[in-house]
Amino acid sequence: MTREVRLGLIGFGNVGQGLAQILKESREEYIQKFGLDLKITAISDARIGNLYDPNGLDAGDLLEHLSENGSFKQHPVAKPGWDALTLIHESNADVIVEMSYTDLTTGQPATDHVIEALTQKKHVVTSNKGPVALHFSRLNALAEANGVQLGVEGTVMSGTPTLRLAREILAAGKIRKVMGIFNGTTNYILTQMESGMSYADALAEAQQLGYAEPDPTGDVEGFDAAGKVVILARLVMNEVISMEDVDRTGISKLTLEDVNTAKAAGERWKLIGSLEIVDGNLVASVKPLRLPITHPLAGVSGAANAAHFVTDYVGEVTLIGPGAGRLPTGYAVIEDILAIYR
Amino acid sequence: MTREVRLGLIGFGNVGQGLAQILKESREEYIQKFGLDLKITAISDARIGNLYDPNGLDAGDLLEHLSENGSFKQHPVAKPGWDALTLIHESNADVIVEMSYTDLTTGQPATDHVIEALTQKKHVVTSNKGPVALHFSRLNALAEANGVQLGVEGTVMSGTPTLRLAREILAAGKIRKVMGIFNGTTNYILTQMESGMSYADALAEAQQLGYAEPDPTGDVEGFDAAGKVVILARLVMNEVISMEDVDRTGISKLTLEDVNTAKAAGERWKLIGSLEIVDGNLVASVKPLRLPITHPLAGVSGAANAAHFVTDYVGEVTLIGPGAGRLPTGYAVIEDILAIYR
Repeated sequence: MTREVRLGLIGFGNVGQGLAQILKESREEYIQKFGLDLKITAISDARIGNLYDPNGLDAGDLLEHLSENGSFKQHPVAKPGWDALTLIHESNADVIVEMSYTDLTTGQPATDHVIEALTQKKHVVTSNKGPVALHFSRLNALAEANGVQLGVEGTVMSGTPTLRLAREILAAGKIRKVMGIFNGTTNYILTQMESGMSYADALAEAQQLGYAEPDPTGDVEGFDAAGKVVILARLVMNEVISMEDVDRTGISKLTLEDVNTAKAAGERWKLIGSLEIVDGNLVASVKPLRLPITHPLAGVSGAANAAHFVTDYVGEVTLIGPGAGRLPTGYAVIEDILAIYR
Repeated sequence: MTREVRLGLIGFGNVGQGLAQILKESREEYIQKFGLDLKITAISDARIGNLYDPNGLDAGDLLEHLSENGSFKQHPVAKPGWDALTLIHESNADVIVEMSYTDLTTGQPATDHVIEALTQKKHVVTSNKGPVALHFSRLNALAEANGVQLGVEGTVMSGTPTLRLAREILAAGKIRKVMGIFNGTTNYILTQMESGMSYADALAEAQQLGYAEPDPTGDVEGFDAAGKVVILARLVMNEVISMEDVDRTGISKLTLEDVNTAKAAGERWKLIGSLEIVDGNLVASVKPLRLPITHPLAGVSGAANAAHFVTDYVGEVTLIGPGAGRLPTGYAVIEDILAIYR
C-alpha cells in the first residue's frame, strides 16, 4: 500500500533543485522500497516564482521548465500571489520543506515559516541553520505540542548523517566530546595552503569555484561553523548555547609560514569546531588547531566535512562526508522525510 | 512507563562481560532515557557456567562474582544442566543474545541457537559472524515468520554502526560501492610495517597484544574480512554470496620492501574488503591494495576499522571506528536491543 506524502517547498534554489533531481530519478524506487510516494505539490520562491497543483508536480518537468524559462512565472499552474505563508495555509502539503536563505542573526524569515507550518500541524524539514541554531528548543516543543515532527539533518554536514548518527545510534554510548570540520570552504583553503598556496590565493580560488561568497566573512571567520556547533550543542550534547557562547577564531590570520611550520612538525592546521564537557560545563569553540597527522580529522581534505565523536562505549568514531552541495543537501531532506514516516 | 526487557545470554566471554559492564553503569540511564529496563535473567556459558533468576541478575554482581570465583559454578542461582537450548526453552528471556564462538565454516553451534530462539518467538541479537555470514536470509525470514527481530550490528565493525548507517540512512542514497578495512589485526600489522617493522615482528607483536590468535590464518589470510564482506553483500547490497565468491588474498606475502616502495610513491598498503556492482554483477574481494595517501581509508591506522561508501546522492561517506573490543561489541548489542524496542 502506497502512502502519498505531499511536499510544499519554500525556496527552490540549489537544495530544492537537488531534491527535485532525486525525486525525478528515485520517486518510483522509494514507492517500491518504502511505500511512500513523495510528491511536490507546491513551491514558493521569492525570485523564481510560486506554483501549486494539488495533484502533484512532476519533478523532472519542474527542472526542465526552470532550465528553459529561468523562472516559474509562465508555468501553467503559477500562483503569483502565493508567498511562503500562503503556501503553508492554502496548500495540501503534509510536509513543509524550508529551504530559504540562512540568516544566523535573526533566523528570519525561515523561523516564521517553520512556526507557522508547525502551528498548522504540518511536519517541517529544513536545511536552514538559522531557525535551528537560534530557536531549536522552542520549535521542537511546538512540533511536539502539535503532534508533528521537525527534521533538521541537513543543517549540519548536509546529507552526511551526523545528527542522526549521534542522536539515534551513538547517544546511548555516552558522547563526551565532539570535534569536527564543519565548514568546507575553510577546509578547502587550508588544503590548498598545505600544497603551498598563500591564504589570499586559496581564498580567491575558493571564491572562483563558488565555495566562498564574495564576502567570505561567514566562512573564514568561523561563523558558519559556530552555527553548527550551536546546533550540535543542543541536539547532541543537550545543552542550549548561543552563538556568543562559542569561543570563535577564524583562519584569516593563518599564514603559509604557520602551515609550513606545522607540516615540519608532522602536524596540520584544521578549523575545528569542538564541544566538550569540562568540569561539568560544556565548552564550545571554533578555532584553528594543529592536529597530529595521525588524527582522524587531519586527513580530511578539500571541501569535505567530518565529525569525530569520543564516546565511553564505542571509543572514537569519525564520520567523513560532504558538507554541502545540491544532491547531498537534497538527500538530507529525503532522509528526514523517510524518518518521519518510517 | 518502564518496559522490562529480559535478556538471556549465550556466552559470557569478552562481549558478554562488556555488555554487563555497560548495563552496570548505564541501566538506570537507559530506564530514564528510553523507558527500557534491560535485565539479564539467564546466562549459559559452556566454560564459565549457567545461571537463571527470573527476577533478574545484577550486572555488577555478576562481574564481581566472576572475577572473584573464575566461574558461576558456585553462584547461588547456578543451573548446572542449563545449556544454550535449555536457556532458550526454559528462561523468561525476551531477547536471546548469541555470543558463543565464531565458526565461519559451519556457523555452529550458534546457528542452531539462533534458529531455536527465533522459533520460540524470541528476538535475537548476535555479534557472531558465523550464522550471519552463512545463513542470514534464512534466519531473517524465520524472524519475520515468527514476528520477532534479528539484530546483527555487532558482526561488522563491532559497535561502530556500519550496518545501521548503510541500511537505515544511506540506502535511499543509492550505494554503488563499499570499500573498507574490516580487520583490525591486519591493519595493526600494516601500520607497524609502515614504521619499519618486518611482517614477522609485527605479527609477533600483534599476537603478544592479543590482537592476533596463536594461529593467525583467519586474520592474515583475509578470512575474517571476507566473512564481513559476505555480510555486507547481503545486508547492504542485497545480494546473497558465499565465502567462496570473495576473491581473497591475505597480507602474509607483503614485504617491508613492498611497503617502502608504496611509501616512496605516496601510497599505503591496506587490506581492503570491497563490494562493487560491475556490469550489473556484484564483485566481492578482500585483498591488499595500494591506496593514495589522500584516500580516506589510507589514514586509518592501528587496530581501527573503517567503511567507505560511494553513493549517488551523498557522494563518498566514510565511517571510522573500533572493529572489536569488549565495550564496543557489548554496545553493538545495546544498539540492536534499543532498535528492537524503539
